[in-house]
Amino acid sequence: MSTLVTGIGELVTNDPALGPGPLGIVTGAALVVDGGRVVWVGPAAAAPAADDRVDLDGRAVLPGFVDSHTHLVFAGDRSAEFEARMSGVPYDGGGITSTVAATRAADDDLLRSRLRAVVAEMRAQGTTTVEVKSGYGLSVAEEARALRIAREVTGETTFLGAHVVPPEFAGRVEEYVALVTGPMLAACAPFARWVDVFCEPASPHAFDGEASRAVLEAGRAAGLGLRVHGNQLGPGPGVRLAVELGAASVDHCTYLADADVDALAAGATVATLLPGVEFSTRSPYPDARRLLDAGVTVALATDCNPGTCFSSSMPLCVALAVREMRMTPAEAVWAATAGGAAALHREDVGQLRVGARADLSVLDAPSYRHLAYRPGVPLVRSLPPGDRSSASGVIGLTLER
Amino acid sequence: MSTLVTGIGELVTNDPALGPGPLGIVTGAALVVDGGRVVWVGPAAAAPAADDRVDLDGRAVLPGFVDSHTHLVFAGDRSAEFEARMSGVPYDGGGITSTVAATRAADDDLLRSRLRAVVAEMRAQGTTTVEVKSGYGLSVAEEARALRIAREVTGETTFLGAHVVPPEFAGRVEEYVALVTGPMLAACAPFARWVDVFCEPASPHAFDGEASRAVLEAGRAAGLGLRVHGNQLGPGPGVRLAVELGAASVDHCTYLADADVDALAAGATVATLLPGVEFSTRSPYPDARRLLDAGVTVALATDCNPGTCFSSSMPLCVALAVREMRMTPAEAVWAATAGGAAALHREDVGQLRVGARADLSVLDAPSYRHLAYRPGVPLVRSLPPGDRSSASGVIGLTLER
Repeated sequence: MSTLVTGIGELVTNDPALGPGPLGIVTGAALVVDGGRVVWVGPAAAAPAADDRVDLDGRAVLPGFVDSHTHLVFAGDRSAEFEARMSGVPYDGGGITSTVAATRAADDDLLRSRLRAVVAEMRAQGTTTVEVKSGYGLSVAEEARALRIAREVTGETTFLGAHVVPPEFAGRVEEYVALVTGPMLAACAPFARWVDVFCEPASPHAFDGEASRAVLEAGRAAGLGLRVHGNQLGPGPGVRLAVELGAASVDHCTYLADADVDALAAGATVATLLPGVEFSTRSPYPDARRLLDAGVTVALATDCNPGTCFSSSMPLCVALAVREMRMTPAEAVWAATAGGAAALHREDVGQLRVGARADLSVLDAPSYRHLAYRPGVPLVRSLPPGDRSSASGVIGLTLER
Repeated sequence: MSTLVTGIGELVTNDPALGPGPLGIVTGAALVVDGGRVVWVGPAAAAPAADDRVDLDGRAVLPGFVDSHTHLVFAGDRSAEFEARMSGVPYDGGGITSTVAATRAADDDLLRSRLRAVVAEMRAQGTTTVEVKSGYGLSVAEEARALRIAREVTGETTFLGAHVVPPEFAGRVEEYVALVTGPMLAACAPFARWVDVFCEPASPHAFDGEASRAVLEAGRAAGLGLRVHGNQLGPGPGVRLAVELGAASVDHCTYLADADVDALAAGATVATLLPGVEFSTRSPYPDARRLLDAGVTVALATDCNPGTCFSSSMPLCVALAVREMRMTPAEAVWAATAGGAAALHREDVGQLRVGARADLSVLDAPSYRHLAYRPGVPLVRSLPPGDRSSASGVIGLTLER
């Protein structure tokens, strides 16, 4: 059944062929959705007939957010660690092990219900595609379990056995890397699209360049795409390694040398910035302008996780990107939609042109600018009004499951 | 009809007689509501019978937020000004006149529907008491109209004819002050509880200490309580004037001399901090720790307005207070509830003890800490689940109307 969506005050298509700027803005637009896909976009006056019709009364429509970096399979609570950090205790990655202990102790149903609760929050805030990493299991069985559960809600699953070195391997990093690249990878690859590594020589808990290369090369050999956590806590080899190996994305990018920026600009790897982490750890924000001005493709994601950023809010990321990283509202909205799609090598999401998935976020506002102009306000609108329990503000929601 | 609320994981009462700390935390608590009031609070095991029963399944409950500083009667849109400011154009208060022009041109129904839309957003985010100022009319008829409309949604209405000097009085500040303190005050006082003034010698648009004193003294003589916008854009006499005249609150407090802090500590005036403004204007945050450490009573409010902070989100204020002003989560939650009540001289809201209004915010989280730990996430829960269109997460909502 086809649905004609009219009364769109401002349509963000992210297709420069459809309208001005990288956002491809169309005003006075209409859009026809059928079978979960966009089948027609254009001026309302020229819209074809459809079986059903929704009038948005001047509201802005943009592609659903693509949250390309999250850690959602976990148990436990780290609000006390957050409170301590806000009173001055620094973050070095060590708190991850407390989540590992709680996650290992949890049964599948608990992990599943926690995961689904956060995914429901994301939907309500306009996220329609989400990547989910493992990384709180850190054993063959536990990592495979996490990915199997994550696979129930998204096809964008990432094996992150190399998140931190678990306590039982303390001082035996090489042995742990052998486990990750051997039996753990073998058990996890069937449930994963991607492999990722926390490449951070500055952290006593994470992995250096050599170990990171081993993890990524093994993942690639197993048929997985590559992602990297790099340069979050200090300078390091993560960014250049990601570009060299052709990773889809390198995430964090807070401490960059000129050579890192040059590599990103020359390569095909997306730089994914996670400003919610800097907000929740009171850390310096990455220099988004330096990356953008160098021509690097930038994505925004939440990094939603119980330690360094327990926010599921892509609108907050957009507002922080504008306030703290001096991205324009247009750059931030592009990065949170098309940028996230690029970071996941996806062409069917992050844009609203014919053939794309009909993942629409409808704002209770006339413009995408209001995502930054109205920080903290839940602007993603339910359709029909008041029906928050179902589609939660997203027409044609097709979050993978 | 009485309702027993059980399954409260953590109850913030703000009554130190009921539990530890300024928040008066009770764990394993229950609460009985009748006739819009709290009629019983205590351990669940000792709860009396009631006609109805709601189980919150371990969720945290706190008093509804008291947003003691907003400007909600307006028309027009200033997202373009916001975007320009984010790209580097400084704020000096001048943009207010563009809202004045749009507001004057709007009919009552437009103003009313815009006001009600933002109030509905506030309710959905847990705000149960809201102060609303005039200040975008700046003529006798327009200011009275704004307050008459504001009075439809709250008893906490504030006459702010002395917001800025309107363009038609440019260079004739004394004449405008005579209008404000004469015919405008006479027309507005019947619809207002409070009088307020933008005391800001650093702004070419606002009022100096002498003019501010005249406005406040005239308002007091007309039976209104006093509020002051002070020390937002630079040092000035606002804070000391507020304390000297016994104002309920002085708001902003960004640029403080030692004498200002000393006056606040010795006086009875609440210092209301509005961190959403600093977020949305990329300005330095007030030094909340200096005030708290000096023993000053601190409130948090949104300052929701179309220019400097178009956020209606008290949860965002709490998160910003913790991240940017180094308030503890407990201090921030107190300031957003009991602090706001103190700033409005209200004893029936901002706390949950017997006799208080049954304005409960229920969080989809186990602790009030999650308001800071989970920034940007709409945690205020609907009851019953999914019914966002009615009470919007607030039991016994009694926003004044």
